[in-house]
Amino acid sequence: MTGPLYRDPDAPVEARVRDLLGRMTLQEKVGQVNQRLYGWDAYERTPSGEYRLTDAFLTEVADGDGMGALYGLQRADPWSGVGFADGITAADGARVSDDVQRHVVENTRLGVPVLFVEEVPHGHQALDGTLLPVNLGVGATWDPDLYEAAAEAAGAELRSRGGHVALVSALDLVRDPRWGRAEECFGEDPYLAARFTEALVRGMRRADAAVVLKHFAGQGATVGGRNSAATELGPRELHEIHLAAARAGIRAGAAGVMAAYNELDGLPCVANQPLLTGLLREQWGYEGIVMADGGAIDRLVRLTGDPVAAGAMALSAGCDLGLWDACFPQLAEAVSRGLVPEATLDTAVARVLTLKFRLGLFERPYTSGRPTHETPFPVRELSERIARASVVLLEHDGDTLPLSAAARRIAVLGPNADSVPQQIGDYTAPQRPGTGITVLQGIREVAPDGVEVTHAAGCALTGADLSALPEAVALAAAADVAVLVLGGSSARDGGTTFDDNGAARVGAATPSGMTCGEGVDLADLALPVAQLKLIDAVVATGTPVVVVLVQGRPHALPDLSSTAGAVLSAWYPGPWGGRAVADVLFGRAEPEGRLPVSVPRSAAQLPVFYNGKDHRYRGYVDQPASARHPFGHGLSYTSVSYGEPKLSRTSVPLDAPTLTCAVTVTNTGRRPVCETVQLYVRRLSGGSSWPRTRELRGFTRVRLAPGESAEAVFGIDADTLGSVTRDLTVGVEAGELRLETGPSSDRTSGVSLTVGP
Amino acid sequence: MTGPLYRDPDAPVEARVRDLLGRMTLQEKVGQVNQRLYGWDAYERTPSGEYRLTDAFLTEVADGDGMGALYGLQRADPWSGVGFADGITAADGARVSDDVQRHVVENTRLGVPVLFVEEVPHGHQALDGTLLPVNLGVGATWDPDLYEAAAEAAGAELRSRGGHVALVSALDLVRDPRWGRAEECFGEDPYLAARFTEALVRGMRRADAAVVLKHFAGQGATVGGRNSAATELGPRELHEIHLAAARAGIRAGAAGVMAAYNELDGLPCVANQPLLTGLLREQWGYEGIVMADGGAIDRLVRLTGDPVAAGAMALSAGCDLGLWDACFPQLAEAVSRGLVPEATLDTAVARVLTLKFRLGLFERPYTSGRPTHETPFPVRELSERIARASVVLLEHDGDTLPLSAAARRIAVLGPNADSVPQQIGDYTAPQRPGTGITVLQGIREVAPDGVEVTHAAGCALTGADLSALPEAVALAAAADVAVLVLGGSSARDGGTTFDDNGAARVGAATPSGMTCGEGVDLADLALPVAQLKLIDAVVATGTPVVVVLVQGRPHALPDLSSTAGAVLSAWYPGPWGGRAVADVLFGRAEPEGRLPVSVPRSAAQLPVFYNGKDHRYRGYVDQPASARHPFGHGLSYTSVSYGEPKLSRTSVPLDAPTLTCAVTVTNTGRRPVCETVQLYVRRLSGGSSWPRTRELRGFTRVRLAPGESAEAVFGIDADTLGSVTRDLTVGVEAGELRLETGPSSDRTSGVSLTVGP
Repeated sequence: MTGPLYRDPDAPVEARVRDLLGRMTLQEKVGQVNQRLYGWDAYERTPSGEYRLTDAFLTEVADGDGMGALYGLQRADPWSGVGFADGITAADGARVSDDVQRHVVENTRLGVPVLFVEEVPHGHQALDGTLLPVNLGVGATWDPDLYEAAAEAAGAELRSRGGHVALVSALDLVRDPRWGRAEECFGEDPYLAARFTEALVRGMRRADAAVVLKHFAGQGATVGGRNSAATELGPRELHEIHLAAARAGIRAGAAGVMAAYNELDGLPCVANQPLLTGLLREQWGYEGIVMADGGAIDRLVRLTGDPVAAGAMALSAGCDLGLWDACFPQLAEAVSRGLVPEATLDTAVARVLTLKFRLGLFERPYTSGRPTHETPFPVRELSERIARASVVLLEHDGDTLPLSAAARRIAVLGPNADSVPQQIGDYTAPQRPGTGITVLQGIREVAPDGVEVTHAAGCALTGADLSALPEAVALAAAADVAVLVLGGSSARDGGTTFDDNGAARVGAATPSGMTCGEGVDLADLALPVAQLKLIDAVVATGTPVVVVLVQGRPHALPDLSSTAGAVLSAWYPGPWGGRAVADVLFGRAEPEGRLPVSVPRSAAQLPVFYNGKDHRYRGYVDQPASARHPFGHGLSYTSVSYGEPKLSRTSVPLDAPTLTCAVTVTNTGRRPVCETVQLYVRRLSGGSSWPRTRELRGFTRVRLAPGESAEAVFGIDADTLGSVTRDLTVGVEAGELRLETGPSSDRTSGVSLTVGP
Repeated sequence: MTGPLYRDPDAPVEARVRDLLGRMTLQEKVGQVNQRLYGWDAYERTPSGEYRLTDAFLTEVADGDGMGALYGLQRADPWSGVGFADGITAADGARVSDDVQRHVVENTRLGVPVLFVEEVPHGHQALDGTLLPVNLGVGATWDPDLYEAAAEAAGAELRSRGGHVALVSALDLVRDPRWGRAEECFGEDPYLAARFTEALVRGMRRADAAVVLKHFAGQGATVGGRNSAATELGPRELHEIHLAAARAGIRAGAAGVMAAYNELDGLPCVANQPLLTGLLREQWGYEGIVMADGGAIDRLVRLTGDPVAAGAMALSAGCDLGLWDACFPQLAEAVSRGLVPEATLDTAVARVLTLKFRLGLFERPYTSGRPTHETPFPVRELSERIARASVVLLEHDGDTLPLSAAARRIAVLGPNADSVPQQIGDYTAPQRPGTGITVLQGIREVAPDGVEVTHAAGCALTGADLSALPEAVALAAAADVAVLVLGGSSARDGGTTFDDNGAARVGAATPSGMTCGEGVDLADLALPVAQLKLIDAVVATGTPVVVVLVQGRPHALPDLSSTAGAVLSAWYPGPWGGRAVADVLFGRAEPEGRLPVSVPRSAAQLPVFYNGKDHRYRGYVDQPASARHPFGHGLSYTSVSYGEPKLSRTSVPLDAPTLTCAVTVTNTGRRPVCETVQLYVRRLSGGSSWPRTRELRGFTRVRLAPGESAEAVFGIDADTLGSVTRDLTVGVEAGELRLETGPSSDRTSGVSLTVGP
């Protein structure tokens, strides 16, 4: 081969990177660590319906004589200003991404391909991209294998239209459900989130897609649940709770992590050298990229007083790739001013280039050139499966569900009963009219022949206007059962999406009932007054009531145990989630979901996570400190009994702490069940940090026919028993533990285990 | 002198300690670091009315052949089980303390006197001890000089009946008003708390009393405002907010600090070597004692699995003196097992002995032997003055107050209108019947001749029972003005105190309306339903309404600006506080108080302190994040205008950052005023930690007659401008600052200052 070494596909990646880096000018290097342009601004549609590259794009490429990455080429949503009229289709998107890539490859000195970075929080946020339920619903399935399959399909879909890198929220935990991004989290628990993060990375990698995990770190614990505010936690709390998912995702092969907006104990993540370098690189040996969150580096100007110094600060801390900010483009000046050594820039560039080589972009820069994914993308099927598995039965009188054939008239009420936009969550592309199935539509599809299904909203999503109540109450009174579909909404357009011509942003001016989503934090977690009054009024009719919550966070619930026949949380179940809900209501599917997050009684008692420190608090004088419904909770249509857990050993040495914990579960009822058997570890003594009430360390889903028994066996090892030691690494510490099994975090049965010394 | 060196009053304390320590057995040493016995159990009253020492006491002294300290000899309250029938009087208390001391001095081998330790949180918690308003009210005065005088008087009162060491809450901050001990804090702000802590120590020292400052550290920031739960803050947040008062108190000469119950990021304070030794001893050079909170060391058994090891852990971390725990008495075994070196025990003993020598106990062990305090103890007068100065006028229509002579009939309503126990707070001895002045009584005292004062409670303190409402509403309707006295209560006996014979604990069985105090945390900070309905119903009568809040924490207030003529917070103003409130209502005193803590709109928006990190949060979607009334706020009966602040220099070098900031304030109204001019510092750039919105760094009270102007001049130096640097020390950092002056934290006017480099 006579070309430069970096073009040799058979050379080791490291050598190719070194060779290429050696050829680059300072300005070219700076070009590689930036993704300033919005992808949707890189091209425009001509009057004839063709696409052409914009001057903005050409200038941006010329500036860096190359381009590190391009964010959101396919993205469509109100924030991007791209609606379904002006959004790009999958086929056009693939073609335009090739056009963009071709320009970069053919019109820059070194021909380094650009990385296409896309938001894939729960499916690709692009026109016609297939949506999964939000991550909080995914977490409720307790089924990482199912999610792994969905991640693979979403990754394949992403790559089919040109994307390389999926940005996915995975690392944040719901430690404060007031936070509007609660819906993007797998739940409140580090172990559960770690399992789903692994599944995400594995699935995406199988589709040849790279994943950047959002957000690193501690963003789920900001003060007051306020978006991108301060996280004041100490390092031990951070390690014990907030880093596990990142660690797992990195071990699974994540290509990158995104440095978060928030500060950690005073130091913003993008400037946090101990976090991004000390922990990530030196302690964990991580070799992927660190991408800054959008514009996050610009915020450092508040510290430095100067954008050039802010860029140097972020680069020195360990950021490799900027996003939208005005500081990283000025890194050449930072280097020439001596604010940061060029070698530090080289390291960042090398990481970006390594990712490009590993993705094969030099060999196969275009969509046509990459190997065809073996299977089609069954994303919609997987989306529906996840939605079905995510429905959590919170309360049940044992009688109301599944809906019996005797229910000849069903009133489907509530502001979330008939809106696809309100059931899909934030970070979603606008849905074309006719896409999806609402709960009302789902019930109509599934209801037996001859059943009359009536509908009224009854009230708006928010506020206290009760004028629409009587209509709903009348329908309820005339029905055999009332299904009340309540909750919140992350629809950025108030539920009306785009106008009949599909023009973007029409909805932005309409009064919004939005109560969740990025930047939409909610203080009072109670359902709005009108929704609560609707429950009361419908209950007062005497008609049996089923409450279905369509929501992106756990709302604080009143005690409905004696008034509602059943209460279910369906989270944001995605476009087809209405069918999934209906399947569960009618018993075509069993309720399988388990709470990935505690449901509070009120915002006044926050925080309510199950795994707080064990201080045996007796509760507030006016209300308990405990959750309305605890983490792990979820009823089924049958009953399941648990035996006592049995250990293969009751004492293990520190250096080989392996054993098994087995528990027998029996379906004692009359319907099949998918039971999620949960394993918790509780520390009774020893350890270098104050113990938590209990910590999830294993779970397994067991399908049981009526009368059937099975033994769930958990293999236990150093990972299961490990805790954060005094030096903030994870290790096994001597002491007395209790291994507990059960159907939820508040109903466990335990057995003692002595560890070491 | 022929006796042992340690008995030589002319020898240096250090030499005396060394000599004495050298003579002690291991068991004697252990005796010196314990205060296991409750003081009220050390003696008993004989049928003839005399006092004698108990067997429990004699055994305890024999066990350690001496006694380190004795807690609560004079203490009376429901928790101690000592009421005013069985409580000890001041004269008897002095005599019994001498009896106890004499036994220890004369019946132990080395005759080391015992330290008498008493709770003096806001006055001596002993029968007939004079009570000050709670610390939150003290904080509202913004008058450390006044508090210093009160602390001196309280210290003198303490010493007059035998006590040596005052335990005083001073270090905790109200970072979460759900916490029941909010009343014990000087407020939410480190600077304000530091000034009062200094005043406390200075005042007490003038009375020859030693102070142990409670609690070290971070107890005001536990999760959920839950008492003694985890504090999860990182070290930077801890240093920036929670350590300033301790640092100031130690500089002022505090004899001790109390290691708190809470953990800090996983490590309990009593086991926190980095805190108790690294910071306190090594960094700050502190030489006083560290006393563990009551029973706190026993909690370490959860970590060690063994009380002997738990004692060793606490001693190794830096605790010098136990309290009630079962671990420190076993330190001899800990030493002999090799869990802690005897030298570590020696260090702790030496600190305890040093305090005893410094207090002169070896020379003057008895009350009769100590010099008489020069002045009598004007505690009651100071208590009333503080109460008057603590009243904060939160809302005012400019017209309703002061009450005019035209108000011929005044209805004084509400559950806090006529109860002394409900206005004194927690950590108080039972008050003898007839002690104190309620708001109702105060109004009757102060109202002009011929004014009719009517009264009804209207409702209970808690709950939603509205049956008593009509009586109150009728009185309001018939009155010219209604004074509604609402709020909370820390009365441990539901307001009925003791029975007619003064027997203790009668109240414990009665339904309690207690909503505040240690162990009484409140989730929902709104006033209880019945109180809110009472406001609405009284407002609906059309009679002008004045709301007076008697409370130990800031309750979340609805917007009363358009319904109530005035809203005042009187905190728990102490036994005579009712008179202080009346003086303000009638304009015999001006409202001088300023908020030492932010008043929230609801518990759902917590936290609400003014000095959070500056992230320019736009608020929750359903309510603002800002306070109902901000820190520093407080109206007067006049109007005050502020000029622009003027700096003597607009740029200062890092090594000599001294300047002055002056602002002219003018009384533009028709009544005199005591205006608290506040100085805040805001960082615009530079610094090693994310900046806060603003930080209080100075305040001064200026008295102005109508029309009068004055210039408030703040001397600014390294202390004013210092911030927590990267290595967690305090220093001046280069950058742009803004110095702001104003009447509250939300109404400031600023000027820029460049610092360094």
